[in-house]
Amino acid sequence: MIKKTRERVSPSVIRRLPRYRRRLTELRDRGVTRISSKELSQITGFTASQIRQDLNNFGGFGQQGYGYNVEDLYEQVGKILGLDKEYRVILIGLGNLGQAIANYTYFNQIGFKIEGIFDVSPQVVGRRVNDIKVQDYRDLSAYLKRNKIDIGIITTNRDSAQEVADTLSKGNVKGIWNFASIDLNVPEHVALENVHLSDSLYTLAYYVNQNQ
Amino acid sequence: MIKKTRERVSPSVIRRLPRYRRRLTELRDRGVTRISSKELSQITGFTASQIRQDLNNFGGFGQQGYGYNVEDLYEQVGKILGLDKEYRVILIGLGNLGQAIANYTYFNQIGFKIEGIFDVSPQVVGRRVNDIKVQDYRDLSAYLKRNKIDIGIITTNRDSAQEVADTLSKGNVKGIWNFASIDLNVPEHVALENVHLSDSLYTLAYYVNQNQ
Repeated sequence: MIKKTRERVSPSVIRRLPRYRRRLTELRDRGVTRISSKELSQITGFTASQIRQDLNNFGGFGQQGYGYNVEDLYEQVGKILGLDKEYRVILIGLGNLGQAIANYTYFNQIGFKIEGIFDVSPQVVGRRVNDIKVQDYRDLSAYLKRNKIDIGIITTNRDSAQEVADTLSKGNVKGIWNFASIDLNVPEHVALENVHLSDSLYTLAYYVNQNQ
Repeated sequence: MIKKTRERVSPSVIRRLPRYRRRLTELRDRGVTRISSKELSQITGFTASQIRQDLNNFGGFGQQGYGYNVEDLYEQVGKILGLDKEYRVILIGLGNLGQAIANYTYFNQIGFKIEGIFDVSPQVVGRRVNDIKVQDYRDLSAYLKRNKIDIGIITTNRDSAQEVADTLSKGNVKGIWNFASIDLNVPEHVALENVHLSDSLYTLAYYVNQNQ
């Protein structure tokens, strides 16, 4: 049912898909089997017409007078996002955040398999995290030649992040998940997604002050 | 120089402020002392007129023909965000992510002081993390009565997050930084900022598949 289309779907639509999926997970967990776009609107905060429009980008899944089948829509949204596949993932930078993500087995369970961990520090190289041996960062290029890696997670400090991104891009990863507090430059064939924790905290600080 | 205004500034403007600040940090580190809005546009990717408009919400800081003083603008943007203040912070949920954040001393250095850590598990209650003793979650309400806390960080699992948010709201925190993969309901006087790591990863998965 997924419409094969060459037109690019707007990034704001794509960003809403994980939110739909999150809500569908909750509905599914509660045993809800079907839902109208109106009800979906109430729990997501998006208008019913926006939801219909968003989903129509991918073929549309509702049925007039019936609404959406929760399980089906959950599966379809997952498919659109590519969550029915497995991804080979490596992580670079084993600081606190890197350790947290390497130990967060949930991502592993849903198909994002961390296969390699790299760091520059002799204190951590050779250690095992979640049964994965930490490798020397200087071996990353060679590793990427031998292994087809889909996603590189950057959890290094700000100063090293661009160099790591360059190495990953040359090593033909398809996407970079960046946690370093810097805007990276990557070639067009590499998808880049940032988690800027500081930006989020600063935004919160602003609103904390507004509410006083 | 900050215009005192009762009008609400649009959330998208607020979300751009941390990005401006990030770029200004980089400029400052490189020793750049002044910058035109055109140059600022080139490095941020926003148009020069948008930058001027954004900053005019708070009084405007540029000078015709001179541009912006980097150090000054950096300070002012920080002030607008409220980064010239200190915040009393507690963290609830000492899983991997909670540990990472509790150990991430950078937030502490810039004024977000974690003063309390709470968890339900007897295995971690009583332990010390970064010299902060982990307290029993059941004592949180009483703790919030004795201590004026600004920000609560939720790093529990999805199922506990709403209950924690309710306790924090009743305990008069001013803001919640939520890492649990759920959309929380909080009263209007509590600012809520989410970091949905899964949403970010799913968005990346989508683009990784588009680029193939």
